[in-house]
Amino acid sequence: MAAASEIDDSEWMAWRGLQVMQRQLHAALEERLQADASISSPDFEVLSTLASAEGNALRSGDMALLMGWEKSRLSHQVRRMESRGLIRRRECETDLRGTWIELTDAGRDAVSAALPDHRAALRSLFFDLLSDDEKAALAGVADKVIGAMEPGACDLAERVMGSPEPNAAR
Amino acid sequence: MAAASEIDDSEWMAWRGLQVMQRQLHAALEERLQADASISSPDFEVLSTLASAEGNALRSGDMALLMGWEKSRLSHQVRRMESRGLIRRRECETDLRGTWIELTDAGRDAVSAALPDHRAALRSLFFDLLSDDEKAALAGVADKVIGAMEPGACDLAERVMGSPEPNAAR
Repeated sequence: MAAASEIDDSEWMAWRGLQVMQRQLHAALEERLQADASISSPDFEVLSTLASAEGNALRSGDMALLMGWEKSRLSHQVRRMESRGLIRRRECETDLRGTWIELTDAGRDAVSAALPDHRAALRSLFFDLLSDDEKAALAGVADKVIGAMEPGACDLAERVMGSPEPNAAR
Repeated sequence: MAAASEIDDSEWMAWRGLQVMQRQLHAALEERLQADASISSPDFEVLSTLASAEGNALRSGDMALLMGWEKSRLSHQVRRMESRGLIRRRECETDLRGTWIELTDAGRDAVSAALPDHRAALRSLFFDLLSDDEKAALAGVADKVIGAMEPGACDLAERVMGSPEPNAAR
């Protein structure tokens, strides 16, 4: 048992494992996205987050919170993707809580084109290797850790987020 | 139950949760490292990986594998840190398997100075929230996923890696 602010060997191993797993998964998924769909992984993240949201639109602040991105990073990314026609910003004069960002038809097509290969990669590299208990444990851990740091993010995700599949029920 | 390459809603939630958790943890840990120890999180990652290794030294290729970094990223980072005296490269003429990278005394001091606050942050933001079963599940998942992508990385970690604590038994 480790004392108050000690971290024992098995905890260090778990932590290091988690970091390495994430980096290797990201590199592998990014490579497949580039090869299969010619989009970058930040592009895909923005598109699939919007595709997962109710009405395929989110307020920029909510989107940053849901993605765990800095607002400035998101706004640069959004500007670049808007100029490519994949998303659209919509200012709402009567709503002071920020700009809405929404998928365009071209953005919806891009997600639909990228999803089958991304899904297959995610399945073979990740989900197929895990038991149902392990998947539930991961979801539970993420929920607790995010809930402690950003209590708003979990409520928001529960309220507006589903799967990125086109026409998924939400 | 999802079909062959489908991903169901609860899997999407688990996957998205894991990404957001990692990003928020990284941002929070980086902020604390900067405030408390004035080192960046890539600096700390390199230093603590070496501090965790047997003899506080690793071959560059092994180090990239253990960290899940691209070799080119590691070599840039190593060059910068060498110029600041935190690590040292050691060419070995009789060994063609690559350069060794080792901690200097200054590097060891930098890890020791940063560890207490980093440990406290990691504990309060992460480990204190998890049950023993959840920690074991995370370690098991990481092991399986990394083992499938990079079979060498797990063996190597088991052989040479411990905790980054100074004088930890290995």
